[in-house]
Amino acid sequence: MTVRLDMEKELDTENPVFIEGLAGIGHIGKTTVAYLADHLEADKVGELYSHHFPPYTIVKDNKTVDLLKNNIYQLKRDDARDLVLIEGNAQASTPQGHYEVAAKIMELVDEAKASEIITIGGYGTGDVVEEPDVFGAVTTEKVKDEYSEHGINMDHDVGQIVGASGLILGIGHERDYPGICLLGETPGFLLSDPKATEAVLQSIEKILDLDIDYSELDEKVKESQEVLKKLQNLKGKQGQDQENQGQQDLGYIG
Amino acid sequence: MTVRLDMEKELDTENPVFIEGLAGIGHIGKTTVAYLADHLEADKVGELYSHHFPPYTIVKDNKTVDLLKNNIYQLKRDDARDLVLIEGNAQASTPQGHYEVAAKIMELVDEAKASEIITIGGYGTGDVVEEPDVFGAVTTEKVKDEYSEHGINMDHDVGQIVGASGLILGIGHERDYPGICLLGETPGFLLSDPKATEAVLQSIEKILDLDIDYSELDEKVKESQEVLKKLQNLKGKQGQDQENQGQQDLGYIG
Amino acid sequence: MTVRLDMEKELDTENPVFIEGLAGIGHIGKTTVAYLADHLEADKVGELYSHHFPPYTIVKDNKTVDLLKNNIYQLKRDDARDLVLIEGNAQASTPQGHYEVAAKIMELVDEAKASEIITIGGYGTGDVVEEPDVFGAVTTEKVKDEYSEHGINMDHDVGQIVGASGLILGIGHERDYPGICLLGETPGFLLSDPKATEAVLQSIEKILDLDIDYSELDEKVKESQEVLKKLQNLKGKQGQDQENQGQQDLGYIG
Amino acid sequence: MTVRLDMEKELDTENPVFIEGLAGIGHIGKTTVAYLADHLEADKVGELYSHHFPPYTIVKDNKTVDLLKNNIYQLKRDDARDLVLIEGNAQASTPQGHYEVAAKIMELVDEAKASEIITIGGYGTGDVVEEPDVFGAVTTEKVKDEYSEHGINMDHDVGQIVGASGLILGIGHERDYPGICLLGETPGFLLSDPKATEAVLQSIEKILDLDIDYSELDEKVKESQEVLKKLQNLKGKQGQDQENQGQQDLGYIG
Repeated sequence: MTVRLDMEKELDTENPVFIEGLAGIGHIGKTTVAYLADHLEADKVGELYSHHFPPYTIVKDNKTVDLLKNNIYQLKRDDARDLVLIEGNAQASTPQGHYEVAAKIMELVDEAKASEIITIGGYGTGDVVEEPDVFGAVTTEKVKDEYSEHGINMDHDVGQIVGASGLILGIGHERDYPGICLLGETPGFLLSDPKATEAVLQSIEKILDLDIDYSELDEKVKESQEVLKKLQNLKGKQGQDQENQGQQDLGYIG
Repeated sequence: MTVRLDMEKELDTENPVFIEGLAGIGHIGKTTVAYLADHLEADKVGELYSHHFPPYTIVKDNKTVDLLKNNIYQLKRDDARDLVLIEGNAQASTPQGHYEVAAKIMELVDEAKASEIITIGGYGTGDVVEEPDVFGAVTTEKVKDEYSEHGINMDHDVGQIVGASGLILGIGHERDYPGICLLGETPGFLLSDPKATEAVLQSIEKILDLDIDYSELDEKVKESQEVLKKLQNLKGKQGQDQENQGQQDLGYIG
Repeated sequence: MTVRLDMEKELDTENPVFIEGLAGIGHIGKTTVAYLADHLEADKVGELYSHHFPPYTIVKDNKTVDLLKNNIYQLKRDDARDLVLIEGNAQASTPQGHYEVAAKIMELVDEAKASEIITIGGYGTGDVVEEPDVFGAVTTEKVKDEYSEHGINMDHDVGQIVGASGLILGIGHERDYPGICLLGETPGFLLSDPKATEAVLQSIEKILDLDIDYSELDEKVKESQEVLKKLQNLKGKQGQDQENQGQQDLGYIG
Repeated sequence: MTVRLDMEKELDTENPVFIEGLAGIGHIGKTTVAYLADHLEADKVGELYSHHFPPYTIVKDNKTVDLLKNNIYQLKRDDARDLVLIEGNAQASTPQGHYEVAAKIMELVDEAKASEIITIGGYGTGDVVEEPDVFGAVTTEKVKDEYSEHGINMDHDVGQIVGASGLILGIGHERDYPGICLLGETPGFLLSDPKATEAVLQSIEKILDLDIDYSELDEKVKESQEVLKKLQNLKGKQGQDQENQGQQDLGYIG
């Protein structure tokens, strides 16, 4: 066993939308799907473990330990499409591992007879922006038109999508699932980017016709803006220091 | 499954020449065989996928995604030898992966009962040359004499051939297939080298007695020459700057 | 076979405490458990070998060679809980290897029907301290309360536990074994840290109600304190040299 | 298959001495055993291939290609112990690969019912010496005494033996084969060190009571001494340059 699916309950959704968000740049994928699972009160149905994950356990704030894992949820909805969600704090640590974890997740997609796949990640641009974009990459030209109604930016220069979000959409495309990968625009140096997460959530809200309460996320956005401001002040100050330093460095030339 | 051969059609060639060109230095292998497949209107018969490929999907210009893969083509010819071609945008990302992908490709060579193997790659020399050479490495002394009629340079200092081109020819030799690896001479720093690609194509044209239309490639050669000129101007300028810098650096010594 | 358990004798302990200490930072894990095995005169019952260990043999002082391995011991006690110990000079050299070795060790834990798991390692802080702490991470809140009676520091900022100590406790938690990981506080740059080892041993002494003779370890603590003093003198001297150097470096600016 | 033993002939030696020398530091192992095989006119009986070897083919001087491989020889002797030899231009490229290749070679040792194992490598000291030593590491104290009659240095500070030479002796020890690893003392920066190779051959000559003709090797020793002299002159010159440079660097301080 190198990847193990540990289901507590059988899936009983009907042609659900399958949404994936795992550890990655700005933790946008994981945070988005965890927020969805939490605020929609989705039902946890299983876990995915893998020998391809990094070889450590997490020590939580209360000093208890947890293996790295991905959590699987389902949500049955009367008036809208059902959902199956997978989110977690780990991705594989080797190329082959990435493919094997994605293949196992696709077993879940196949079993669920998903009607659509949405994978979520971040795209680091190096720049801090006021209103982060959501970049989209899709399985077919046809679905691209449908998604572009939801304000997703389809005019970008993302050339490849690394890890689960890329591979699941790619394998999905091969197996004729329609789908999209949503990539939140993020500076790339933030451990967590709630603002980009919020932008992605708003796209999902439109795609799935949800009604999401952003209050908790808004608080985190405020906090992260403070952190960002401090970082920028620091950087500005460093810039000045470096400039001074530069003048000193040139001192011996004149 | 770590390497999967996904055949849409069965091969029905007779003792074809098997030609391989995959992602690599200057993309000479992939571009050469893709050009052959396109201009000879070869028939696509299958694809090769592998868990050993780098773990990402490509986002194409139209924003649809594709798994990394190798494409397999066949071409039946009345008046000349049949061809089986494999080209693609990926090679394995680990040593063991390289051997496993090569072993799977050799299954295809065996099944096709190939009469000859031609593998294609690039050899980076660090130098920009007007007329790139095509360096050859062969399975036996006997076939070397035959190939040298076609203007292939057999007097070079290539010491090893890394990846699919090397391993397929090596395993081929072990299994008594005659064959050659053609390496286009390339500076090594070009992402794509259409000029070296053209040189290799000209060798293949002679070996296989083909009649190739180079018009599309010629355009790309022109474009790449422009890029190269800009790069060299830039480098020349940098050289001057560094020289000036050097004089400044010495300023404090005197 | 990638991990092999080579048992000379069957385990005949009853619900033992399972204690793991392998190669790692400051060699605290290995040294602690080896000291326990030696001073409690535990009975060697087997060895664990793995293709995931680093690919070399050890040359001992007498110039005979030994494969890297982990040693397994048991100790039956009339008036207290039995023990099963595993210590050794190697851990896996890849992520997947770490999980596979941990999975094999867990087979032993399961077979022994262990009543508790204690894993041991070091935590490098960068600082030399007079009285090294022992940091704890546990399987459940409930056992945390029990362990904190034994002077184990549960108020620290260890965020993850890499390797066997982390994975065995994590998998143990998943399988409902109660347990703790004890991490000796160590500067991080010491090849061997007997002082931190002694601190961990004292915690184990309390947990298991043992009576350990520290005389041999005390000698090593003295030796290592000498080494440390020399290192610090050296560092102090370097600091001064660097300061002088700094003044010289600034010389040309003024 | 990750390691494949390809035997052309069955072994028909009786309790042979098994001698291993593969690619490694100063190519002492490979060169020693290849020299033995050649000069004793041993009979080639098979080859070993592995997916764990580095993923390239060798291009030989005549421009034909060869997969990396290890060659197996046997030599039946009327008046002395039979020999089985393995030499080659490759070792595994990963930790697990090293163990798997060594395990496959040990199948050969077991099948041959070897009476003794000799593995050969180099030990880089950083120093050029007039008379390179041969360092020994053994399976047991008992055999150490026997080998030390042959002028093998058993008073050294080699702490570990990486790769096939170490693992084969280590596994051999585990399976009760007597044996020794001979490590030729070498500066470490030489691609090939015929002088250290000659020293190792002289030890083997004594152990096996052979009569080796060193004439070919002597020529190579002369050649390598020339190379070494040039390297040292170069180094001496660089040293002087650096010294001058140092004086210039200090120029601005005074």
